[in-house]
Amino acid sequence: MKYPKIPLAQTVIQLCKAKNIKHIVISPGSRNAPLTIGFTNDPFFKCYSIVDERCAAFFALGIAQQIKLPVLVACTSGSALLNYYPAVAEAFYSEIPLIVLSADRPKHLQNIGDGQTINQKHVFENHILHSANLKLDLKDELNIPVTEDIPIFKNIEDKLERLLGLQKDIQKHNEQELNDALNKAVIKKGPVHINVPFDEPLYDMVDALKVAPKNIPIEVEEPKMDTYILDQCLNDWRKAKRKMILVGEFAPNKIEQKWLNLLAKDESVIVLTETTSNLDHGSFITSIDKLIAPLKKDDFLKLQPEILITFGGMIVSKKIKAFLREYQPKEHWHISETRAYDTFFCLTQHIKETPNYFFSEFLPKAKQVKTSYKNYWTGIKLDRAKKHLSYVENLPFSDFKAFDILIKNLPNDTILQVGNSSAIRYAQLFDIHKSIEVFCNRGTSGIDGSTATAIGCAVAHKRQTNFITGDLSFFYDSNALWNNYIPASFRIIIINNGGGGIFRILPGHKDTENFDTFFETKHALTAQHLAEMYNFKYKRVSSQTDLTNALNSFFKESNQPKILEINTVGQPNDDILLNYFKHVK
Amino acid sequence: MKYPKIPLAQTVIQLCKAKNIKHIVISPGSRNAPLTIGFTNDPFFKCYSIVDERCAAFFALGIAQQIKLPVLVACTSGSALLNYYPAVAEAFYSEIPLIVLSADRPKHLQNIGDGQTINQKHVFENHILHSANLKLDLKDELNIPVTEDIPIFKNIEDKLERLLGLQKDIQKHNEQELNDALNKAVIKKGPVHINVPFDEPLYDMVDALKVAPKNIPIEVEEPKMDTYILDQCLNDWRKAKRKMILVGEFAPNKIEQKWLNLLAKDESVIVLTETTSNLDHGSFITSIDKLIAPLKKDDFLKLQPEILITFGGMIVSKKIKAFLREYQPKEHWHISETRAYDTFFCLTQHIKETPNYFFSEFLPKAKQVKTSYKNYWTGIKLDRAKKHLSYVENLPFSDFKAFDILIKNLPNDTILQVGNSSAIRYAQLFDIHKSIEVFCNRGTSGIDGSTATAIGCAVAHKRQTNFITGDLSFFYDSNALWNNYIPASFRIIIINNGGGGIFRILPGHKDTENFDTFFETKHALTAQHLAEMYNFKYKRVSSQTDLTNALNSFFKESNQPKILEINTVGQPNDDILLNYFKHVK
Repeated sequence: MKYPKIPLAQTVIQLCKAKNIKHIVISPGSRNAPLTIGFTNDPFFKCYSIVDERCAAFFALGIAQQIKLPVLVACTSGSALLNYYPAVAEAFYSEIPLIVLSADRPKHLQNIGDGQTINQKHVFENHILHSANLKLDLKDELNIPVTEDIPIFKNIEDKLERLLGLQKDIQKHNEQELNDALNKAVIKKGPVHINVPFDEPLYDMVDALKVAPKNIPIEVEEPKMDTYILDQCLNDWRKAKRKMILVGEFAPNKIEQKWLNLLAKDESVIVLTETTSNLDHGSFITSIDKLIAPLKKDDFLKLQPEILITFGGMIVSKKIKAFLREYQPKEHWHISETRAYDTFFCLTQHIKETPNYFFSEFLPKAKQVKTSYKNYWTGIKLDRAKKHLSYVENLPFSDFKAFDILIKNLPNDTILQVGNSSAIRYAQLFDIHKSIEVFCNRGTSGIDGSTATAIGCAVAHKRQTNFITGDLSFFYDSNALWNNYIPASFRIIIINNGGGGIFRILPGHKDTENFDTFFETKHALTAQHLAEMYNFKYKRVSSQTDLTNALNSFFKESNQPKILEINTVGQPNDDILLNYFKHVK
Repeated sequence: MKYPKIPLAQTVIQLCKAKNIKHIVISPGSRNAPLTIGFTNDPFFKCYSIVDERCAAFFALGIAQQIKLPVLVACTSGSALLNYYPAVAEAFYSEIPLIVLSADRPKHLQNIGDGQTINQKHVFENHILHSANLKLDLKDELNIPVTEDIPIFKNIEDKLERLLGLQKDIQKHNEQELNDALNKAVIKKGPVHINVPFDEPLYDMVDALKVAPKNIPIEVEEPKMDTYILDQCLNDWRKAKRKMILVGEFAPNKIEQKWLNLLAKDESVIVLTETTSNLDHGSFITSIDKLIAPLKKDDFLKLQPEILITFGGMIVSKKIKAFLREYQPKEHWHISETRAYDTFFCLTQHIKETPNYFFSEFLPKAKQVKTSYKNYWTGIKLDRAKKHLSYVENLPFSDFKAFDILIKNLPNDTILQVGNSSAIRYAQLFDIHKSIEVFCNRGTSGIDGSTATAIGCAVAHKRQTNFITGDLSFFYDSNALWNNYIPASFRIIIINNGGGGIFRILPGHKDTENFDTFFETKHALTAQHLAEMYNFKYKRVSSQTDLTNALNSFFKESNQPKILEINTVGQPNDDILLNYFKHVK
């Protein structure tokens, strides 16, 4: 096998291999050639080539989101690295392990006005778990130009020995930093940045490794619940008559069904799950906005929990956030191995365990309490569901109707990726079949990388991935389609209402040219040209009948990926959504 | 006139107006609504709406590059801001004034897991002149939720007074920070970041301003040359027989012709200008690589200057950098009001004045020295020019030939924007008519925003803008075309050699699949679909005859902008370039 000649490149690659980092997304460049050579010549790694670093990083994020192991992105020096930032921030807030590997100039060529050179060290400082700044070698550390020898190497043996010691220190520093960074991405779940300086020649190869870096394995601690806290929680739980469990973005199959069943049995407990929570139980309340939107003060007082348990990532529903901030519970426990945000300004306990472990310790000892809390809200939920059906039935063609038809037609046992923000907000209003896993970039809720993330997911997962997105978000991330790895089963559904429809729902003055241009950002684009450019099968529909007909075959097997563009331009989409919340009251 | 109701938004907008910041590039969002309302309702401002923030910022950079005044970009909270980073870094290294205005959540909604919220403060720390973090109001500073009153406001009058004082302090802080940031962008020439928290309601308007923020004007210092340094320089200059002036990226018409003429007269001085230097004098050496590439050690010793004067921005030519690092001058003076990089590891003097002022003080007193230095190198230059002509004459169709034809056909009195990196390197080998101004993003030398920059330039300048780019760079920045302000006179010329042709010039192993995929990043894309999507007139040529024919009308007036795609896939582009340097020897 061929290896890059530069020992530092060997060190990086060997440690990635030792830590089982398999997926490597490379963007073209020259400074990162030693890394590209190393990764692409070793069949252990599955390498991808993606030019636009913004898309490359979201693509990597999509893979990591699915495999729940670190995925690595590697780029050349300069502004290339900065294009990773949107995905780095998403990984940071969504707790997805992402390894950013940037090639850099050697120290003596930094900050001297050399080409394609920026200040790369700590560049993601606000949104990174660890920034490892590797050192090239002794010569570079001593800032000696490549063209010169190290002068004190001559003749004086004891100095030579000291210098060799320093060289060893550099190797040790690099190994420690690499181990720290790579391990932290797994333990703390999120992005880390490793900056690697290289000097020319960059393209030389050798047949044997020169280094054998030490892999420091991750120490896995046995979970252990603090008994004092547990007792306190059990005590509070026993006394409370209204308990709410609210679940944000959460990976599928991470909680045993028996715990969900136990929770479902307790009449004093209601479980509110977001679409991205991937939790399912017939008795849970899956559509939070539908429940809460029509409520008045009296209802809120009835809904106000005494204890709130939250787990999972970000919450999409603005309505539940506003409600819990105003009608705060006495106790708010957040369960997460990593972080607890005080989202409702009343956090009382951060339980640093996985939710499944917490429930395994807590629920068998928890007393079930008989109150009317759950029954009452289940009644409301069923009432809302009926009204939802009657509203949707006679709806004209619109964003809302399109979502209704789409979600009913999604094939079972598939993955659904959803774009920001209208798309995920609409999706939350519908019941999605429990065999469908749902994902959305809600770490930063950006419109910048949803397509690339969905493609990464499609590459990583055996199941078919379907992606529903709005038009602005789709066109924003159009470079995501510049990707040679898109499986034929991948499907994109664009709800194209000719602009940022979400702004028509928000307050503001809507009958002005300024609104159209600067808020809604009206456009007349369609995805047809991009579909042709990137070899997608393409269909555009503008009516309910056409949509229904198209869906007969859209999700079926094919030899190329497909785009379905649903044109709802000119439909009264905002009125239909606003009236919906009045209707389900 | 309508104003945003929030006083902080009024403060920002009034100060921008007072400082004559006219061009405002807005990306859609809700959190920034108070700013969008303020800017778009005041006819003083020329507002643009661009969805993809990466393109928006490069577009703004292109305007600022031309008007040499700050241009402002404004976006919503969250990852939107991060997409500005590539252009921020480019502005930082190219010294272009760019004002980044980001809306943020109020303090009490930060770091609590609220939606679309990241850690925005100081996010560009490595590449920014100033980060101003504005404060919303007293309530937010005291971290009191919106739903609550400030408790101590009640009853106790002296405390009330103190609180009002604090409120005034906040306004004072904001005004000072805004003045500092906006002034620094002009004085130090580069990007500044202003982070502005807003709380709901965001869309309210009022008919009258509530604030009259104080504009602190920029104090302009009279330039003054240190006489001791001047005498020292004159003394060194008088004694030296070989003096080299090297000019990097430089704005047109910034040096009086009489100083250039004086420099040209001195037989001991050679002036090496890069294509982006926009300096012209018949006796200057305009094609550095063409001169240097074939030189050997003996020649280098003859070329080695005793004194090197540099001014302007980044140097494209790698060959001159390598030469001057190895054959260092005794004296290296860099002339710039702002920064001096020690690019050749021998900087002895940073003269903090404009080049024009320095020459006006220096040249009238400088003694002209009679040596053969200039004559000798002018001889070489003329010889190279002849050989260049004979090489190009019989060249088959290729990247090189295409550049030859293109540059000969560029209309006079136009702007030429050039992409990175092959495109600008090729352009440097040709003589471009002196009436053509040339620009290229060489601050970070990225391929990420050249098209958007060129479009910004086209919008800002009355002259026609023509943009020459490689294929990877063009497809990378394809969203730049999603822009409603592109003038009909704008032209894009894509040299499409099916991948990153530059990698075939660099060392490395070229006959492998890995090379094709991960270095050259081969593709079969054409710009045709994008041209249709974004209403460009499009033509593709694959031969010399077709290219020449196309150019008969391509630059002529039209009612829509045009793309000319020059297909050189499969041509021996790398051999032709490498042989060129052998031929001109």
